[in-house]
Amino acid sequence: MKLLIVNGNTTEAVTQTVTDVARAAAPAAEIAAVTATFGAALIASRADVAIAEHATLAALAGHYSGFDAALIAVSMDTGLRAARAALPIPVIGMTEAAMHTACFLGGRFGLVTFDPRCTALYRELVEANGLIGRLAGIEVIDSNFAAVYANTGAFENKITDAANALVRDRGAEAVILCGAAVAGVAAGIEARVSVPLLDAVVCGVLQAEALGRLKARKPSSGSYAWRESARLSAVDPALAVLLETPPNPGLKADRVD
Amino acid sequence: MKLLIVNGNTTEAVTQTVTDVARAAAPAAEIAAVTATFGAALIASRADVAIAEHATLAALAGHYSGFDAALIAVSMDTGLRAARAALPIPVIGMTEAAMHTACFLGGRFGLVTFDPRCTALYRELVEANGLIGRLAGIEVIDSNFAAVYANTGAFENKITDAANALVRDRGAEAVILCGAAVAGVAAGIEARVSVPLLDAVVCGVLQAEALGRLKARKPSSGSYAWRESARLSAVDPALAVLLETPPNPGLKADRVD
Amino acid sequence: MKLLIVNGNTTEAVTQTVTDVARAAAPAAEIAAVTATFGAALIASRADVAIAEHATLAALAGHYSGFDAALIAVSMDTGLRAARAALPIPVIGMTEAAMHTACFLGGRFGLVTFDPRCTALYRELVEANGLIGRLAGIEVIDSNFAAVYANTGAFENKITDAANALVRDRGAEAVILCGAAVAGVAAGIEARVSVPLLDAVVCGVLQAEALGRLKARKPSSGSYAWRESARLSAVDPALAVLLETPPNPGLKADRVD
Amino acid sequence: MKLLIVNGNTTEAVTQTVTDVARAAAPAAEIAAVTATFGAALIASRADVAIAEHATLAALAGHYSGFDAALIAVSMDTGLRAARAALPIPVIGMTEAAMHTACFLGGRFGLVTFDPRCTALYRELVEANGLIGRLAGIEVIDSNFAAVYANTGAFENKITDAANALVRDRGAEAVILCGAAVAGVAAGIEARVSVPLLDAVVCGVLQAEALGRLKARKPSSGSYAWRESARLSAVDPALAVLLETPPNPGLKADRVD
Amino acid sequence: MKLLIVNGNTTEAVTQTVTDVARAAAPAAEIAAVTATFGAALIASRADVAIAEHATLAALAGHYSGFDAALIAVSMDTGLRAARAALPIPVIGMTEAAMHTACFLGGRFGLVTFDPRCTALYRELVEANGLIGRLAGIEVIDSNFAAVYANTGAFENKITDAANALVRDRGAEAVILCGAAVAGVAAGIEARVSVPLLDAVVCGVLQAEALGRLKARKPSSGSYAWRESARLSAVDPALAVLLETPPNPGLKADRVD
Amino acid sequence: MKLLIVNGNTTEAVTQTVTDVARAAAPAAEIAAVTATFGAALIASRADVAIAEHATLAALAGHYSGFDAALIAVSMDTGLRAARAALPIPVIGMTEAAMHTACFLGGRFGLVTFDPRCTALYRELVEANGLIGRLAGIEVIDSNFAAVYANTGAFENKITDAANALVRDRGAEAVILCGAAVAGVAAGIEARVSVPLLDAVVCGVLQAEALGRLKARKPSSGSYAWRESARLSAVDPALAVLLETPPNPGLKADRVD
Repeated sequence: MKLLIVNGNTTEAVTQTVTDVARAAAPAAEIAAVTATFGAALIASRADVAIAEHATLAALAGHYSGFDAALIAVSMDTGLRAARAALPIPVIGMTEAAMHTACFLGGRFGLVTFDPRCTALYRELVEANGLIGRLAGIEVIDSNFAAVYANTGAFENKITDAANALVRDRGAEAVILCGAAVAGVAAGIEARVSVPLLDAVVCGVLQAEALGRLKARKPSSGSYAWRESARLSAVDPALAVLLETPPNPGLKADRVD
Repeated sequence: MKLLIVNGNTTEAVTQTVTDVARAAAPAAEIAAVTATFGAALIASRADVAIAEHATLAALAGHYSGFDAALIAVSMDTGLRAARAALPIPVIGMTEAAMHTACFLGGRFGLVTFDPRCTALYRELVEANGLIGRLAGIEVIDSNFAAVYANTGAFENKITDAANALVRDRGAEAVILCGAAVAGVAAGIEARVSVPLLDAVVCGVLQAEALGRLKARKPSSGSYAWRESARLSAVDPALAVLLETPPNPGLKADRVD
Repeated sequence: MKLLIVNGNTTEAVTQTVTDVARAAAPAAEIAAVTATFGAALIASRADVAIAEHATLAALAGHYSGFDAALIAVSMDTGLRAARAALPIPVIGMTEAAMHTACFLGGRFGLVTFDPRCTALYRELVEANGLIGRLAGIEVIDSNFAAVYANTGAFENKITDAANALVRDRGAEAVILCGAAVAGVAAGIEARVSVPLLDAVVCGVLQAEALGRLKARKPSSGSYAWRESARLSAVDPALAVLLETPPNPGLKADRVD
Repeated sequence: MKLLIVNGNTTEAVTQTVTDVARAAAPAAEIAAVTATFGAALIASRADVAIAEHATLAALAGHYSGFDAALIAVSMDTGLRAARAALPIPVIGMTEAAMHTACFLGGRFGLVTFDPRCTALYRELVEANGLIGRLAGIEVIDSNFAAVYANTGAFENKITDAANALVRDRGAEAVILCGAAVAGVAAGIEARVSVPLLDAVVCGVLQAEALGRLKARKPSSGSYAWRESARLSAVDPALAVLLETPPNPGLKADRVD
Repeated sequence: MKLLIVNGNTTEAVTQTVTDVARAAAPAAEIAAVTATFGAALIASRADVAIAEHATLAALAGHYSGFDAALIAVSMDTGLRAARAALPIPVIGMTEAAMHTACFLGGRFGLVTFDPRCTALYRELVEANGLIGRLAGIEVIDSNFAAVYANTGAFENKITDAANALVRDRGAEAVILCGAAVAGVAAGIEARVSVPLLDAVVCGVLQAEALGRLKARKPSSGSYAWRESARLSAVDPALAVLLETPPNPGLKADRVD
Repeated sequence: MKLLIVNGNTTEAVTQTVTDVARAAAPAAEIAAVTATFGAALIASRADVAIAEHATLAALAGHYSGFDAALIAVSMDTGLRAARAALPIPVIGMTEAAMHTACFLGGRFGLVTFDPRCTALYRELVEANGLIGRLAGIEVIDSNFAAVYANTGAFENKITDAANALVRDRGAEAVILCGAAVAGVAAGIEARVSVPLLDAVVCGVLQAEALGRLKARKPSSGSYAWRESARLSAVDPALAVLLETPPNPGLKADRVD
């Protein structure tokens, strides 16, 4: 099983952190990683996300070949839908993976995040996944991912308190610690939280592996079928190849009649 | 990885079918299975489900020891919430597993079932999972599980047509073939459906394995924490032991303060 | 009008309390009651509920004959759907009855319950009834039904405060006091709550009586039609008779064409 | 038990039809009726509804005294919320009553109506009741209430077909025949429909009786508490009295602290 | 562009306040206003709303001729649906306009209102507009519209605090100040709120102007098509003319086939 | 009033079509337009959308200065949230504008689109706007935007039929014709549809003008406040300037306390 991790931020160090956590969680898999080549060092705004949609897709286009599945290691699941449609291999987002995994462990789940200005984006992500009925609440620690990444240890108590507040006050029965920058942190504090505390990167790599083994067919109809772009201009060459070359000449016709 | 499959129907042959499919899908796992000892041969009504809630829990109580995770192989996910709360190991339902997996492969999913009298139960199951916003539709083949199980080959064309109808008319981007009795059937026809056609038993065993590896902590608060039953009477001895003996004396206190 | 009350707990004293309250609320009805013969003394966990689904159905199977309607007097409405499908008479749950009655008295309603570990189950019950849009909130008194039943008087102030908090902070315009164990308590404190405080047993018996008088036909199609179980094994004889004998040989065909 | 029926249409004959059906359904109750004195003969548009909101409230204001509960016998439940707030007795709408009753008999319910231009209003009514998740569908017979009322017999086959179509194609497990003008019609055809076919007037009178017996307290806070109108002008004298005179001088204070 | 404002309250001074604010917001439009001739001086209860449904429609019926669009300047959008259906010109409600405008400025919006007894009505208004998923919360200042209108200046600090609380605690990204009586107040305090603070009258007049310029066709089918009332009695003559005279003899047929 | 239109497709001719329609709809406004400089000629897949998120934002960044509001003229509203957050002027999407405008004209609205592979994206757009409860349905003409744009006249009958089908079969009370490529087409056929047929570009320019006149304050908190990107790399210089330079040095602090 070969898995590709893509970091939609341009910070290589985060890529390395994520990869280390993923390898520990899926020791039998062969895991490689790629980092976005343009955009923000750490995604922190809606504009950063828009650029990263493109950058994530481009990074995957250049490196997916030979892998069984890919994991998008940005907590906004940036570029996920585009990559899932364009690539011939399964693609999963880390937060998406964590949310659906949380549904297997309890009733409603909570999210712990780090930036009041991004809270709305996480709520939108839950809604876009159709899971708003399972959201107990979001606890936001008043900081930002850059500060947290610089010193994760300093945030352990706040994370623990936020998670237990979700359990006590909102009825969360599982809690997701959001953010690629905090990959690996949950393991150190999960014993202090009274419900499962999920590391989204761990969930993501386990689900990527499951999808790699499931080998579901690539759809040939619907919005996740591959589709040729019309006269692309000024995009990365690897991305152009991905979007202009049918992934499988023998792919069956669009409609099944 | 040791996985336990429980069949809430009393028909041993279905247990064997499911186990064969599960072993093929998760060759590295050690898989055992147990069959309910009371209730209906094949669950087909709300009354059958009510009895099977109890029977599934009792069967798991008697056999879970030593396993890393359990899979409930009844398409109604019968007894799932009770087992998840009572057992110290993770428990997953086959249809639950398939629905969340479908969310990783497309936008909205469809279900193919076999009994007009059970359609409402599947819809309730989707709703109880909080996934109604991702349901494209349910196609029902006018038969019943007993007839289908007796001769699955005769239903392949109908299943294919039903799945493609969900894609064409309802916008399904993944389709789940429901029912333990049809485990293994999807593999033979998935090439004739233009989107992923999911075998719920395969999804279930892959997710059980993922949960076994995730090793999320057992909650000590909320509705999925283990809880001592008050003066149980006239229940199966193994079930009584499960519900009357704290699974872990050192388990931390109920509230985290 | 003959009404049958079933208590899915095995505690006879609760059955008696409920019956007394029901008789006072519906003096013109002839009311009898039956208690579950297996399971927990007081249902307090998801596992207890699973067993009680079976026990409630079995208790009804053995005693429904000759009654015009039945009331399930467990606040989880345990076994309701199964009993509604299997029995030829109408069956109603006490909390279901109270929630729909609350909708006739105000906009959104609140619930007062007694056990933090069961809160999630009540929310799921509201959702399963499709009434989540009318739920103002749930206030949980940190105790359990056994403690409350042992000394209801000691909880009157807490219940009053919880109900008024739902009105003041959540906008509840009616409040339901949940639990068979607190049947009769609302009457003593309703004057201290500024919106209707509903006794779920009272609502249940009034609705059972209304259904008994409505005499709606038993469905012959859909998931609430009676349906023969396939080769039942090891179940209570009365339950086997109910599930194996068509209730009405002249019942019209399943489909109306 | 004294029940008051109000017809928000100005057609006395409909009032008589409704009253006859109600008396047959609740033989022990003493039932009187009042007809709106202004507005449309048969409500058929949004403008008619707006006028009838006022007319229904005015009619109730002039006649409610001495009754235990009131039933609004217009299928749009016209004026219901206003009357429920303004009157010291419980008030129920016929369609509201039927929808909640349907929830006691099956999973999702269907509506049969008679005028394509009013279909949207019924859907809005279901939504306003928070019951859209339990709506299987609405079947509209291409006619109007005036034509149906003039010759109900001619519509029996169409109603039967519409109801069975809701069962077969939409999964309805109970069907409501909407409209005061068709009160009494369901009884003649219910045997030809495979699920309960509800007469909304019958449901309404049974629920009015249940509310009359429940004797829930009148709220003193929230939007359904009585509230003095500020300087009313040019309204019916009885309505002015109702809205300008506190119903109960000893009524406890607005807030419970 | 000629716009008609209708005030469903009978207080002329409010009409003048609203008109002044509207004229300042849309200086190029020719704006006239009409005040309801019966009902409450300031709408404050469900009963007042019911009367105002009728009064608003009647006021519009008598004055709409020659205008391009109409704005209902009552924060409950009283009579909106009826007027939209009955009149040949577009009609918009002030709160409806503000809510949809808020959706163009942020994710979820909050409402600031002034009367705890009306909070439920605002929530119902949001729900009736299908926008509950975009509601962050409602903050209620414990007063009433009469007190606020008498001295708006005294409430500026409370409004500012309430708006900022919605931003800080509920995640509102735009806030609507509800009420015709507070038209013009937002302008003075918007600089002290960290997200857009919307004056609903301003939003209403801008949207009325946009609809006037859009010149969408009047529907000839559906619930918003004009429809003749059946034998109206005892209504205002202008209203009778509106509801009994087809607005456009050449209007195309009801069904398009 | 100066309005900027941005076309996220790279096809200049579409930009010109849109601009012509916009100018006719808002003759008093000064309207300019800009076309994306990279990505697909006509957006037709999820991958095209991901690239266009970036391209739209970059195009706006280079040209917004001096404008009062901007309109994104791509039917997916591509890049809308990012642009709304990053720019100091209001930004609106054409489909968003049309959907909210439709809400002012009827109950539920329908969409007419041209590409079965994009249907899911439109549904997601409705959901992301929180308007799924107002969606009557989507009718898809089996073609694609390139074909439609090449010969819009040939599609007029199909569009008319699709719109009327939404009215007749789904209860749509307003219909939106989706797509920048069909700007101007609705005007020619609206008389043949029995409810308002909305041109999304027309709605978009009218709403852009309304927002330009509303002059709501730019938020300084929440997810739509401007926010500095962290170490951007390899992005368009104008975009870098926009995201790295605070738009207003005197902008008040993030939190209002």
